[in-house]
Amino acid sequence: MNKKMYKVGVLGATGMVGQRMIALLDNHPWFTVTALAASEQSAGKSYADAATWQLDTPVPSWAASMIVQKSAPPLDCDFVLSGLDNAVAGEIEEQFAAAGYPVISNAKNHRMAADVPLLIPEVNAAHLDVIDRQRKNRGWNKGFIVTNPNCSTIGLVCALKPLQEAFGITKVLVTTMQAISGAGYPGVASLDILDNVVPFIKGEEEKVETETRKLLGGFDGERFIDAEIAVSAQCNRVHVRDGHLECVSVEFSEQAEPEAVIRAWRSFAPETTKLGLPSIPDPFIIYKEEENRPQPRRDRDAGWGMAVTVGRLRRCPILHYKFVVLSHNTIRGAAGAAIADAELLAAKGLL
Amino acid sequence: MNKKMYKVGVLGATGMVGQRMIALLDNHPWFTVTALAASEQSAGKSYADAATWQLDTPVPSWAASMIVQKSAPPLDCDFVLSGLDNAVAGEIEEQFAAAGYPVISNAKNHRMAADVPLLIPEVNAAHLDVIDRQRKNRGWNKGFIVTNPNCSTIGLVCALKPLQEAFGITKVLVTTMQAISGAGYPGVASLDILDNVVPFIKGEEEKVETETRKLLGGFDGERFIDAEIAVSAQCNRVHVRDGHLECVSVEFSEQAEPEAVIRAWRSFAPETTKLGLPSIPDPFIIYKEEENRPQPRRDRDAGWGMAVTVGRLRRCPILHYKFVVLSHNTIRGAAGAAIADAELLAAKGLL
Amino acid sequence: MNKKMYKVGVLGATGMVGQRMIALLDNHPWFTVTALAASEQSAGKSYADAATWQLDTPVPSWAASMIVQKSAPPLDCDFVLSGLDNAVAGEIEEQFAAAGYPVISNAKNHRMAADVPLLIPEVNAAHLDVIDRQRKNRGWNKGFIVTNPNCSTIGLVCALKPLQEAFGITKVLVTTMQAISGAGYPGVASLDILDNVVPFIKGEEEKVETETRKLLGGFDGERFIDAEIAVSAQCNRVHVRDGHLECVSVEFSEQAEPEAVIRAWRSFAPETTKLGLPSIPDPFIIYKEEENRPQPRRDRDAGWGMAVTVGRLRRCPILHYKFVVLSHNTIRGAAGAAIADAELLAAKGLL
Amino acid sequence: MNKKMYKVGVLGATGMVGQRMIALLDNHPWFTVTALAASEQSAGKSYADAATWQLDTPVPSWAASMIVQKSAPPLDCDFVLSGLDNAVAGEIEEQFAAAGYPVISNAKNHRMAADVPLLIPEVNAAHLDVIDRQRKNRGWNKGFIVTNPNCSTIGLVCALKPLQEAFGITKVLVTTMQAISGAGYPGVASLDILDNVVPFIKGEEEKVETETRKLLGGFDGERFIDAEIAVSAQCNRVHVRDGHLECVSVEFSEQAEPEAVIRAWRSFAPETTKLGLPSIPDPFIIYKEEENRPQPRRDRDAGWGMAVTVGRLRRCPILHYKFVVLSHNTIRGAAGAAIADAELLAAKGLL
Repeated sequence: MNKKMYKVGVLGATGMVGQRMIALLDNHPWFTVTALAASEQSAGKSYADAATWQLDTPVPSWAASMIVQKSAPPLDCDFVLSGLDNAVAGEIEEQFAAAGYPVISNAKNHRMAADVPLLIPEVNAAHLDVIDRQRKNRGWNKGFIVTNPNCSTIGLVCALKPLQEAFGITKVLVTTMQAISGAGYPGVASLDILDNVVPFIKGEEEKVETETRKLLGGFDGERFIDAEIAVSAQCNRVHVRDGHLECVSVEFSEQAEPEAVIRAWRSFAPETTKLGLPSIPDPFIIYKEEENRPQPRRDRDAGWGMAVTVGRLRRCPILHYKFVVLSHNTIRGAAGAAIADAELLAAKGLL
Repeated sequence: MNKKMYKVGVLGATGMVGQRMIALLDNHPWFTVTALAASEQSAGKSYADAATWQLDTPVPSWAASMIVQKSAPPLDCDFVLSGLDNAVAGEIEEQFAAAGYPVISNAKNHRMAADVPLLIPEVNAAHLDVIDRQRKNRGWNKGFIVTNPNCSTIGLVCALKPLQEAFGITKVLVTTMQAISGAGYPGVASLDILDNVVPFIKGEEEKVETETRKLLGGFDGERFIDAEIAVSAQCNRVHVRDGHLECVSVEFSEQAEPEAVIRAWRSFAPETTKLGLPSIPDPFIIYKEEENRPQPRRDRDAGWGMAVTVGRLRRCPILHYKFVVLSHNTIRGAAGAAIADAELLAAKGLL
Repeated sequence: MNKKMYKVGVLGATGMVGQRMIALLDNHPWFTVTALAASEQSAGKSYADAATWQLDTPVPSWAASMIVQKSAPPLDCDFVLSGLDNAVAGEIEEQFAAAGYPVISNAKNHRMAADVPLLIPEVNAAHLDVIDRQRKNRGWNKGFIVTNPNCSTIGLVCALKPLQEAFGITKVLVTTMQAISGAGYPGVASLDILDNVVPFIKGEEEKVETETRKLLGGFDGERFIDAEIAVSAQCNRVHVRDGHLECVSVEFSEQAEPEAVIRAWRSFAPETTKLGLPSIPDPFIIYKEEENRPQPRRDRDAGWGMAVTVGRLRRCPILHYKFVVLSHNTIRGAAGAAIADAELLAAKGLL
Repeated sequence: MNKKMYKVGVLGATGMVGQRMIALLDNHPWFTVTALAASEQSAGKSYADAATWQLDTPVPSWAASMIVQKSAPPLDCDFVLSGLDNAVAGEIEEQFAAAGYPVISNAKNHRMAADVPLLIPEVNAAHLDVIDRQRKNRGWNKGFIVTNPNCSTIGLVCALKPLQEAFGITKVLVTTMQAISGAGYPGVASLDILDNVVPFIKGEEEKVETETRKLLGGFDGERFIDAEIAVSAQCNRVHVRDGHLECVSVEFSEQAEPEAVIRAWRSFAPETTKLGLPSIPDPFIIYKEEENRPQPRRDRDAGWGMAVTVGRLRRCPILHYKFVVLSHNTIRGAAGAAIADAELLAAKGLL
């Protein structure tokens, strides 16, 4: 399968997620970017002129000189990655799917739709089975939509999945400390976050609570069945550039010793990690023994930003265990997540 | 009672807590500082020379020129406030109590002792009844020890007390985001906290879990009875100067509507607030309606740093309610807490 | 003169400078706010609804309930303070002056006009003599425009003025490190400034270079004569909330010993400070002896934010001396500057 | 010359500079680390146990398992890199040199000695000629000492060298904004730098002023001749992790157009860059056209932290030109500087 180089179009290419997608696709072994699309104002300009590049690594030269196109079909590509803003993503992504393009989206618009997979390759690859139904429902021939979860949901669910498989999970209580890059650019005003924490991110707690249940749930051939897990989230913005840190308490269906919990993380080996997807590190879950880890700045880049780092497992006086989990919000939690989804689709012959 | 000016000695006067005590005692209506004591190295120097003043307000001129004494009795004062480091506080405070001085301490050493009050004036003034027993146990005539809680416990317990009175509390799960000033000076290295969160503070989670149960518990004439509340804490250091922010989930004994919960906070009026203690604002609990408050930088100075600000009450899918609480860690959580304790003792004729 | 309470209108009342003006006018002994004006969108709303209050002190209750008016004459007031944005300030301020209102403006639009005073009360009160000419030039009867300098110019010029009087100044080379609040709200994106310095602020170096020469120059009855001082500025944005820090090198016309330089600052007593203007601290220049001061966080609030703090005087191997100066950019450098200008006008019977 | 793998010993291996040296020597094409040395307390432990690793990249596994030795000869290596603290570096480095080891040191102790090269490979390779004299002076056979400059001097001098060659330089006035990592670990307390700038770094201004003159000066066969350049420095600590930013004003001996200045930087090609030293990027000076660059976070990693980035060239109203320069203080300014020095020594057959 890896022989073929797939042609990729990036929607919302000038935004923060689009920029990160371009950086991550530089020298990608399976994918080559053949189209960059953004808003009308950007269309017709070179990417270098259209985008205010935010990453600390330079814009790849192949991207700098590409002419940005309008975010509308047709584009010369095999599939599209969408970093579009929620305000416009819903309709544009449907247009591409209707026009025959597989769409892998980071936007929230279609995530909770009954016939759209909300996908983390290592967690719920089986949800891809819904694609046939999606096409039928919507009268699409070849195109379809797959989404990746919200940035604060992904790390949490990656850490929960091995525990769910090993012990069952009934309750999850999480408090997040989220990086400023999660709000895009210009995003969080420096006057709001210097010497401060903002204990509110619009819509975020709802996303964590609903997406987690869908991701850890099943697909019965007809529809998604939410996992029967009570999820409670409190979301905060902290003065960190990249990396969402989360304090989690969890209740299992079965008793488990601490060693067994750590073993569940360390030995977790879903089918997907055996497919050799280029963006999935092996292991993709790292358990750190140090008493003060994970930390955003020190651990966010583990596994080129695609690993999920867990630490501080200890018994919880209320639920069963508490622990800390960290993931890079713009790589594992956004652009890298969409690319990994595309890799899984490629590996399964769905592109 | 307010007619008398009490003479105060400050132990550990050169440290961070001692400095804050001095700043707060500047122009205090009941207390006048007559002795500053610190380590042997500081003894004999003027306070201006002995202390590396950290606060952004200037050192009061009366303090600057005082000669620092050794932290040992006798000192010319009616009682002592102790900002001593835990490493030495235990023994020195006992020496002062044995020598006849009431000791009000911010150190952790005696907090959990069976005959020492762990005191928040608005929460558990009745715990002072143990002082007679303490004197008898220890063979002290006039002196005694009273302690204030850990900085991350105080805000939490102030927010819980009205709920406990109104509805009963069975479970409390809290994740803290604590300011760097809580670690003293030089304390947290800038290289550890810039663009980072440290999800670990040594001994902190244990303090929150044990102190909360003592503070919300009773005194049966013989001994303290811990409240039957399960408490689970996760403690983090964030890049904030002052102000500990805490995300709390709580389970009540009885059902309560949200309006009733907010009313419990707003109408809470313990006997103590009627005593007119100079350091206790009325109300001392502020509930904010804004969806993104409290925030450390914007709310920590409410009630000259002695108010506790609560916000974001909403139902918790696992326990009953979740909310956010903030308090100033070096004022309400340390120096101001000890001074408020002293004020209560003065008002009750115990100094 | 102080008997009368002047009625003040605030233009641009919802912006950052307007907010600071309102906070500083709370309980002002001479001025009472009788009108708040802002853009069309805000007009008709209560100030509490119209403004996104950014300061850490609460909005004064008298302001919260005032109804915001359109920024156009007439307003019920004796004079207006303008915190308007440069984009609209030019025209609106002229409308008010033409309608008979004295206008004291923080905007840059009229600062360098040949008949408009650019005023720091302690530095160039004599420039007010131009007002008659301004009225004549523009056909205004009663109204006129007075401006305060750019936030990074004010601290510099306050520190230079005593040196100019004592020794003459021929060259000034300054590198600024400016706070984020200088860019307004939302202003600087947190992603741009976290773990960073931005060595560029649009138009800032030009303002420092031209305004300094006007402020330290004279008025010959006909026109302003720029001081014959070469000024070179490099301006940087640093990760500080409030307080512009500036490293200065200066060349004098005459030789001077270091003690004489410090004495020039400490003994500087312009006529204006004897007028008892409520916003001008006495002394308004503070020279600190410590080797590592002034610092933004520790010194910006000196003299309720209206003092200018100087330190680290030492000989410069290229020009004569180098030193460091700090001033609060939104108080001394903006809102407080305009209010002080108004106080001087009141004291001189010009309102 | 590149055929041989040199064996390197690292002195002060557990400190911040030593850690960075180890990270940079991982997979070095010419050098392989064969000895790690530190203080008595660390000696005998594995490096993983002895060092509190501060870098965000993991400790190389070959280093983690090495046993730390005492910082005294003999060590099994061809030369030593010294990241020792100034407090002990002077004596220990002399012991190694006396014992026959070439010593390349980041410490300040020997930098200004009359017979010790203060070396930047691209700037003053000819200074190595002093080594024979050094050996003779000190009675050393094979060993010798070479030093790299202070972290804030290096970037400045790299930017000045091409200008000196092209136009001559007579005056340099620089204001630095230096990163916290320059102070080592724990170094700068977070309470000192959050929301602040500290306008003082002990001894730093003197180092910049004296080292610059030595580096840009000559060696006449007998002794170093300081460049006849007046240098004036003001040094500040800002809230940035890595990367020293410097605002420079410079006066030339000859007139030059701006284009010529930029061309001098871009075309600068010292002999050394042709030697193919592995740590020297080509070009090693980058001139950025953007009006707001260089910035620490966005440019410090250019040329794997060994490039020097310059920007914002414009005429200075007092000296001739002003510009901004940035270099990574712990790579180009410390550990990488010493390694580059060692590479030059290797290329010249001096190891």
